[in-house]
Amino acid sequence: MELIEALRAELGEAQVLTGADAARYGRDVTGKYSWNPLAVLRPATAGEVSAVMQLAHAAGMPVVPVGGHTGLNGGTSAEGVLMLSLERMNRIREIRPEARVAIVESGVVLAKLHEAAEQHGLAFPLFFGARGSAMIGGNLSTNAGGSNVLRYGNTRALCLGLEVVLADGRVMDLMSELHKDNSGYDLKDLFIGAEGTLGVITAAVLKLVPKPRAYATAMVAAPSLSEALVLLNRLQEATGGAVEAFEFMPRSYMERMAICHPELRPPFGQTYDVTLMVEVGATAPRDVTPGPDGTVPIAALLEETLAGMLEEEMILDAVVASSEAQRNEMWHRRELAAEITLSRHPLVDTDIAVPLDQVATFIERIHARLPALDPGFETMNVAHLGDGNMHFTVYPTSDDPVLADRIREAIEDVVLELRGSFSAEHGVGLSKLPSMRRRKDPVALEVMRAVKTALDPKGILNPGKVLP
Amino acid sequence: MELIEALRAELGEAQVLTGADAARYGRDVTGKYSWNPLAVLRPATAGEVSAVMQLAHAAGMPVVPVGGHTGLNGGTSAEGVLMLSLERMNRIREIRPEARVAIVESGVVLAKLHEAAEQHGLAFPLFFGARGSAMIGGNLSTNAGGSNVLRYGNTRALCLGLEVVLADGRVMDLMSELHKDNSGYDLKDLFIGAEGTLGVITAAVLKLVPKPRAYATAMVAAPSLSEALVLLNRLQEATGGAVEAFEFMPRSYMERMAICHPELRPPFGQTYDVTLMVEVGATAPRDVTPGPDGTVPIAALLEETLAGMLEEEMILDAVVASSEAQRNEMWHRRELAAEITLSRHPLVDTDIAVPLDQVATFIERIHARLPALDPGFETMNVAHLGDGNMHFTVYPTSDDPVLADRIREAIEDVVLELRGSFSAEHGVGLSKLPSMRRRKDPVALEVMRAVKTALDPKGILNPGKVLP
Repeated sequence: MELIEALRAELGEAQVLTGADAARYGRDVTGKYSWNPLAVLRPATAGEVSAVMQLAHAAGMPVVPVGGHTGLNGGTSAEGVLMLSLERMNRIREIRPEARVAIVESGVVLAKLHEAAEQHGLAFPLFFGARGSAMIGGNLSTNAGGSNVLRYGNTRALCLGLEVVLADGRVMDLMSELHKDNSGYDLKDLFIGAEGTLGVITAAVLKLVPKPRAYATAMVAAPSLSEALVLLNRLQEATGGAVEAFEFMPRSYMERMAICHPELRPPFGQTYDVTLMVEVGATAPRDVTPGPDGTVPIAALLEETLAGMLEEEMILDAVVASSEAQRNEMWHRRELAAEITLSRHPLVDTDIAVPLDQVATFIERIHARLPALDPGFETMNVAHLGDGNMHFTVYPTSDDPVLADRIREAIEDVVLELRGSFSAEHGVGLSKLPSMRRRKDPVALEVMRAVKTALDPKGILNPGKVLP
Repeated sequence: MELIEALRAELGEAQVLTGADAARYGRDVTGKYSWNPLAVLRPATAGEVSAVMQLAHAAGMPVVPVGGHTGLNGGTSAEGVLMLSLERMNRIREIRPEARVAIVESGVVLAKLHEAAEQHGLAFPLFFGARGSAMIGGNLSTNAGGSNVLRYGNTRALCLGLEVVLADGRVMDLMSELHKDNSGYDLKDLFIGAEGTLGVITAAVLKLVPKPRAYATAMVAAPSLSEALVLLNRLQEATGGAVEAFEFMPRSYMERMAICHPELRPPFGQTYDVTLMVEVGATAPRDVTPGPDGTVPIAALLEETLAGMLEEEMILDAVVASSEAQRNEMWHRRELAAEITLSRHPLVDTDIAVPLDQVATFIERIHARLPALDPGFETMNVAHLGDGNMHFTVYPTSDDPVLADRIREAIEDVVLELRGSFSAEHGVGLSKLPSMRRRKDPVALEVMRAVKTALDPKGILNPGKVLP
């Protein structure tokens, strides 16, 4: 094929994979999606990405950018078309500690950036289970969330500048390091979260933050989600907004964990309806200087807040981590969520968000509606509670796609009633196209299509994703 | 004229101003721009804005949206076309203190929102001199900055959702209250900062923050900007990032203030090269609980940091405000910047940004280049130093437009060398069109034009602004 030959001439034989070499790129972490790419391209520079896009554009051949293959919605499936892997663009070009920025290529693995920032006493505060494989380009293209959004925002909030290769190969330089820049339209944010449908992100300027000097971490049992919100607000007040994570694990999750991982010690002697994992981070020296009784202030603030809530019977139990090992144990329980949630079938999984004060209402309403669809349903609802973001999962009693769709629609009905979103942090990809079609504001969809057509008139960038 | 009649039928006679009634809309706060609008329209609802846009679109008649007339770059000039004033859409629809959001129409005056938030113990942390007239719609359309960007970000960072009327009258509902929402392209940020060229913002969901319980405010004299940066970093570390404002006033500003406002007490017995106004905000109760010596911790942290710097001779003098009156006096000195800067002519004023650690280099390089253009030049450089954002102003010795342009080009040269921006917080409007043409990445300009054409194919929304 002429195009493949031309690509080989540009990138070198070794960087244009076909056949069996390409086949291992034909799946992602979910195991739900698989495909046969025409070829896999592995450019090493923005110039090479540009050359690839020029050739593909001329040929009208679709190109699907891919990073660490950790997407959850099939956003990188590429049947019979080109895959453009950013894995070789994996340089951390520069870390400037005083300016608190990292300049990276998009194939840098998230955990590598964590390590590099840490060497300067700084942190890149984007944190989730797949950090050992997920790449910065994919994080940006999906506007990834995770467990620290509460304090630091999602990937969008952590990006100051971008380099993007457009559908026809033009390279756009938006590599600003500035915190204030009003020179025309905000193009950067158009490409963040566009899942590779508007351009290929090749490099970025990312914000770093001071690495907390200490964490105070606790497991808490609460009578209901209302008290959980009171706890969140009191902790934010006491610490001046230093809550880094506020994660909810329901009874069903803790029970299932006991089955899947009997080796893990449960946090409490009994299982509660509402188990929370709470973490506060201290960046100021005064917060980690031990007081007369040896307690560091950040831990004292957490303990005092929890003690007050216990006394008022607004929480039922609490345990504060007294070592890094205990803290890791707490995080480990939370990070098993994907594995544990996906260990039962059939399932209908979601990634929804509602306003913070509407989480309890959502749960109440959906539990009132599901019995009419499937009286035997069960649920699991691990949530980034501090963001109103739930990975609400339903286990229906039969593996019927019509039933699954009805359950999904019922969830979306309640989410929309509460002015929430059917897609909070994982993006749209393929799997949420039906939700986009039926739930997104129709004018917003028209505007998205107009933007897509303006930037990719031949429709070659990751076609069939995001926009129904 | 048929169009005017149709508009009167939609909005009512009283809300379509022409002649002398319209004339008073033909200028802005700068006094530099004036124009004669064909008519001024004052719709009261998004539906009426939609009706206006449908009629204008059908007629191919340009429409210039306007809020509080406080723009500094001529972004609302509208010779012979329609002006669409949002001033009657001035309702704060809802404040939900628990969710920390305000839902407002775009004609709400910024200071009114400040007052409304304060009644709930909250703050809308966008703060600048024109807050008594500037309206939320204009703040959003220009992505306004100001004195608290350091802690809270610019207007973009404070907006969760928007309602936008498009060029042809379609109403787009992006009124999300969510902190996580990845349902397709980030359209919201495309309209923020677009200066009314892509759509008319009619309502917004805005973030509120806890109002600091106390402020610690100080005037500081430093030997140079390098020590100023050390001070900023030490204060951020000591307070865990609670610095709300970090403002630079040069010797030339303090000297001119003594002339323009002899009634004002100067902060120090002598005038220094580098005068800073520093403010730290305390949101946690522990920061405002007096210690054994009666000092509240937030003030103690500021005083200790300043004392340490004095001892090391890294600052020359410092005075901490001991009353709200003294704090107001400090702010008043800073807020005279626009008046004092504009009180001398001829002048070349700018709104530039460079990376935080490059401010001193900028000043050094520009002072090395200007003498070749005008040996007698003087400068004034009041700056949001914590953001790297300078309102660098040059006073040339002659009122020669060619000289003014050369000075502007020299400033832009240095700014671009340092990877800065020629437009930091005031937007582009008319006055920065030449800079957009010669300085913006050409591919970025092409993409902006493609987006503009996609969303406003007839080019009726605020034509001739932002894009050269």
